[in-house]
Amino acid sequence: MQIKLDTPLDMHLHLRDEDMLKTVAPLSAKSFSGALIMPNLVPPVTTKEALLSYKDRIIDAIGDNEFTPYMTLFFKNNYSYEFLEDIKDDIIGIKLYPAGITTNSDGGVDNFDIETLRSTLEAMSRLDIPLCIHGESDGFVMDREKEFVPIYEELASSFPNLKIIMEHITTKDSVEALERHSNLYATITIHHLLITLDDVAGGMLNPHLFCKPIAKRYEDREALQRVALEANPKVMFGSDSAPHPQHAKESSHCSAGVFTSPIALQLLTQLFIDNNSSIENLQKFISSNAKDIYNISPKSKVITLEKKPFIVPNSYDNVIPMYASQTIDYSIIGIK
Amino acid sequence: MQIKLDTPLDMHLHLRDEDMLKTVAPLSAKSFSGALIMPNLVPPVTTKEALLSYKDRIIDAIGDNEFTPYMTLFFKNNYSYEFLEDIKDDIIGIKLYPAGITTNSDGGVDNFDIETLRSTLEAMSRLDIPLCIHGESDGFVMDREKEFVPIYEELASSFPNLKIIMEHITTKDSVEALERHSNLYATITIHHLLITLDDVAGGMLNPHLFCKPIAKRYEDREALQRVALEANPKVMFGSDSAPHPQHAKESSHCSAGVFTSPIALQLLTQLFIDNNSSIENLQKFISSNAKDIYNISPKSKVITLEKKPFIVPNSYDNVIPMYASQTIDYSIIGIK
Repeated sequence: MQIKLDTPLDMHLHLRDEDMLKTVAPLSAKSFSGALIMPNLVPPVTTKEALLSYKDRIIDAIGDNEFTPYMTLFFKNNYSYEFLEDIKDDIIGIKLYPAGITTNSDGGVDNFDIETLRSTLEAMSRLDIPLCIHGESDGFVMDREKEFVPIYEELASSFPNLKIIMEHITTKDSVEALERHSNLYATITIHHLLITLDDVAGGMLNPHLFCKPIAKRYEDREALQRVALEANPKVMFGSDSAPHPQHAKESSHCSAGVFTSPIALQLLTQLFIDNNSSIENLQKFISSNAKDIYNISPKSKVITLEKKPFIVPNSYDNVIPMYASQTIDYSIIGIK
Repeated sequence: MQIKLDTPLDMHLHLRDEDMLKTVAPLSAKSFSGALIMPNLVPPVTTKEALLSYKDRIIDAIGDNEFTPYMTLFFKNNYSYEFLEDIKDDIIGIKLYPAGITTNSDGGVDNFDIETLRSTLEAMSRLDIPLCIHGESDGFVMDREKEFVPIYEELASSFPNLKIIMEHITTKDSVEALERHSNLYATITIHHLLITLDDVAGGMLNPHLFCKPIAKRYEDREALQRVALEANPKVMFGSDSAPHPQHAKESSHCSAGVFTSPIALQLLTQLFIDNNSSIENLQKFISSNAKDIYNISPKSKVITLEKKPFIVPNSYDNVIPMYASQTIDYSIIGIK
């Protein structure tokens, strides 16, 4: 049986820059129609000039592939209405990082006082620019997302017309918050749909499955699977695919990030089929929900998959993917 | 101020075999009077011949140091009374591993039905041979020790004259169980007194702090610190120092184990002093409690420490210690 996925979108993607950009951009661009590009470069993307220049480098890197990079700015609480109005058409959203919470987030927000954030968030709300948030506190690693939920909820209540995307949610608590507020949405990664902390640290420690937020408990994974598999209109796929060179992962100081871009569609297909969901629901999770949430119309691209063993490469240049050297059940057999 | 520790004992130590034994045995033998040696070699130590031969290799490896290796057998539920009576004087205890729960534990126990274990445990009880247990279920990594507590308690109640040592406890739950049963005792490692899961996976992932049981929450560490710092007579120091070569730690499949032998006394001294406990309590935790629990009389050795910065070596041969290259506050300045 052939499975056709129309216009797949990855609504949370790290393409990095320079050599790494050249390695990973073509892999996403091959099987996705478009992706929301994260702005946590060094330095972060905070100006129109940096944004357009980064977009040019991405377009350069994707080669002949048909692919739309949906650009984002790195949130700063001093962005003015005028600045945002001017840049609005070049971005799909603005990404907020708590300071220091993940890779290249040092310039992020260190004070979630609503009044401090109000003028920028009100401007975004009026201009209909979605706010994407990495929602973690600086608490105990297993509690960070749960502890951030009250901030999500306060923001959602204080700015009812602002679309807030809870990025890469990993917990039951986030799923429940999502369902309580009409203006909260979420991305979910393929790895958080598949693994728990047991896969990271329950047997041998696996640095290639170490990411932020860290994978959680079985009941958390179950809550994520439920909203993904039922294609809840408030959730969409975002891989958070985050490449690091092998030496930065298999190290005494291992960086956070799982690299999944080249296998995400195959794994999602397997997940939806094995759990008796439908290709229709997968289509919503991988594309239509995102189109509705972000109000975008990417160019059509049809990916054909089939149940056929695919041996995941041991590496893509110097980046080790999730499930390296393992065999997964589905293969991409056509891209049109 | 000089701190003198009399006859320090490490009641849970992995010395491995062959080259690794030659690397690590002298390091323990230098600053400890003796140690309880774990039997999880490949194959595990299950016969008198293997035990005595391993003891000889250890004595060979420690060189000129004055050091007593207290040997243990790997628990099998078919050990007869006669076998145990014959080997009794050569061992200090028998170590029980649930099958597959940690490094080289495949031949361990896969059924904790009391009747299956009864004849061997009754023989041990009559012969006054302590039972040392790695107490973890095969459940979710953060729950494994908590889930094993009912088994500890059932064993303690079923064999009231059997001394049961809860090895390397990491949770508040174990501390509470320890306090409920007169025949439960415990070892505590220096790393579980110092770190939480945040140190392993809260920032960069640190494979050199990855061990089994995995480090837990702040409230767990607090419970461990409480019974250690008050020198509760039922707890004693056991480093669980578990060396692996660097390539097995900084790897896509990282082995479990933290290597602390050469810095354990320095870190314990710092911990007890910084937390306003006393050298008297440290003396109990590091020596007298173990002598009472195991009824042993190791030869005296006095280690003198001082508040003087010590830069932890980057490696000992190919083994990376905890806190490699970092500076700790106390140094060993004399061994007599």
